[in-house]
Amino acid sequence: MRPTGQLHLGHYLGALENWIQLQHEYECFFLIADYQAMGDHLDDIGLIQRSVLDVATDWLAVGIDPEESSFVIQSYVPEHAELTMFLSMLTPLNQHQKNPTLRAEIGQLESENQSVTLGFFNYPLSQVADILLPKAHLVPVGEDQVAHIEYTRDIARRFNRIYGEVFPMPRARVGRVPRLVGTDGRAKMSKSLNNAVYLADDPDTVKQRVRRMVTDTTGENPRLRPTDPGVVEYNPAFLYHDAFNDDADEVAELKERYTAGTVSDVEVKDRLSDALNRFLEPIRERRSWYAEHPDYVRDVLLAGTGRERVIARQTIEDVRQAMQVMYA
Amino acid sequence: MRPTGQLHLGHYLGALENWIQLQHEYECFFLIADYQAMGDHLDDIGLIQRSVLDVATDWLAVGIDPEESSFVIQSYVPEHAELTMFLSMLTPLNQHQKNPTLRAEIGQLESENQSVTLGFFNYPLSQVADILLPKAHLVPVGEDQVAHIEYTRDIARRFNRIYGEVFPMPRARVGRVPRLVGTDGRAKMSKSLNNAVYLADDPDTVKQRVRRMVTDTTGENPRLRPTDPGVVEYNPAFLYHDAFNDDADEVAELKERYTAGTVSDVEVKDRLSDALNRFLEPIRERRSWYAEHPDYVRDVLLAGTGRERVIARQTIEDVRQAMQVMYA
Repeated sequence: MRPTGQLHLGHYLGALENWIQLQHEYECFFLIADYQAMGDHLDDIGLIQRSVLDVATDWLAVGIDPEESSFVIQSYVPEHAELTMFLSMLTPLNQHQKNPTLRAEIGQLESENQSVTLGFFNYPLSQVADILLPKAHLVPVGEDQVAHIEYTRDIARRFNRIYGEVFPMPRARVGRVPRLVGTDGRAKMSKSLNNAVYLADDPDTVKQRVRRMVTDTTGENPRLRPTDPGVVEYNPAFLYHDAFNDDADEVAELKERYTAGTVSDVEVKDRLSDALNRFLEPIRERRSWYAEHPDYVRDVLLAGTGRERVIARQTIEDVRQAMQVMYA
Repeated sequence: MRPTGQLHLGHYLGALENWIQLQHEYECFFLIADYQAMGDHLDDIGLIQRSVLDVATDWLAVGIDPEESSFVIQSYVPEHAELTMFLSMLTPLNQHQKNPTLRAEIGQLESENQSVTLGFFNYPLSQVADILLPKAHLVPVGEDQVAHIEYTRDIARRFNRIYGEVFPMPRARVGRVPRLVGTDGRAKMSKSLNNAVYLADDPDTVKQRVRRMVTDTTGENPRLRPTDPGVVEYNPAFLYHDAFNDDADEVAELKERYTAGTVSDVEVKDRLSDALNRFLEPIRERRSWYAEHPDYVRDVLLAGTGRERVIARQTIEDVRQAMQVMYA
């Protein structure tokens, strides 16, 4: 996860919920990918530093247990950069350039007149190194990242073929709801679009954000009165209800009344605010404790990073043995 | 210097001779750039391992003093990879892609149907990191590498402007004879062209290589008899005489007779063999001692690498402070 600010419901659904499950089944390493963030925010250098702590605080708040899993700061494990370098020497440039996700992202940045750095161009391989360094077997990802896992398998296979078996083949594990729409109905919840509900938002803020929420993403079904029959499918309010409302009966009832035209948007939204606040309350409570104890959060980061380094050093040694780049 | 085999007279003239001077004037770090060699020789993995030791042995043989200077193995200093990663985040992709040397080299590789790796694409930035890591002030280079130093200055300037003054501006120091032609008259002495005279060649081998030497690179002045007036300019035999024959009177006399048509190619070559063997004899003598003591050579490499690491760690700490990527 890139450290670019506080986490929101989109992060929860796309990643954290999955992680909370996985931590009990596997030895997990959760990575704060700060290298990439360096390139993204040259205008606000202090942001990364604040965000690294914010992200770790949010992880703790949602219930990721630092005794069970390791929180890792990417740039504190020099082996990430080393493995990226080693792997780059056997990665064909033309294969890398053909990566459709990378091409699309570069095109997007260029169309926005944002600068594309060499570091950004290299990031898919840096991700490969992130995955292969702890010799991961399973990678929890959003649906849009499945191609990256395929790329990782390609590189791992290539390495194993040339130098001998070092890396296991990682598999992708896609979360339940791959991506949460923003409160404005846009495809992705994101800080820069200002359409997010944050894990740290207080109850009133949640209520305000939900009040401003769009309930029609198509523009074809504007609902003017509570008595108009409404459309539930692709309706952000109901997508959120489905994802976060723990009262399934209430959701079913609201959907029925919405379709029949017997409930107002305001009531649907207020019930959503209540549901979100029920969901967020324990997270907020834990979060405020961790926010008051930043030294504890730092210790968690350093301890997890230390655990990964032990494994990382061994992987690099395996890689060096295989590549025969040990000289003494 | 890339570790791709034993060193030859081209390395001596293009680099080592310069280094031998510089070691007395500056604190020098001489780098064995093994990362890049990894990509170049996927077909002969063991070559790098042998070459690292060969290169260090050759350096010692020509008189580079490991007490005065540091012999550094690039991949044994993880900070090289780290700094490359950090710098990549502020290097514009389009500036990197425009690098004329890189474009020419990639074009060359592609025309030979050789694979171009992502690591190769990145190498100019990796060189920038090699230079900036010890905060170098002066970089001994061949004439064809002056552009790389300009690139380094660009990146350093950019870093200093965004994050604050961390790097001094390095300058290029070009050797006396930038490039030695091969014994076949081709522009560059190189192992792959099989047109090299090695520092470790025994006297007979030197004699044979010189005997096969081309004395006319243009094809326009074929000299059939010793009585034909010959051309001295761009004549490989005389370029070598100029560079390595310590008897300037002999060289002047040979040139005069060659132009006048009063000396045979064979005599010019035999005198060259003698001169080269005079030059190589002390190198060979020292070399055979070091070749018999590989543990000493390894210690030299590890000691020098250790000295660079101390400085490298400090540089990375400075970079982290400046970029504000320190979290604890």
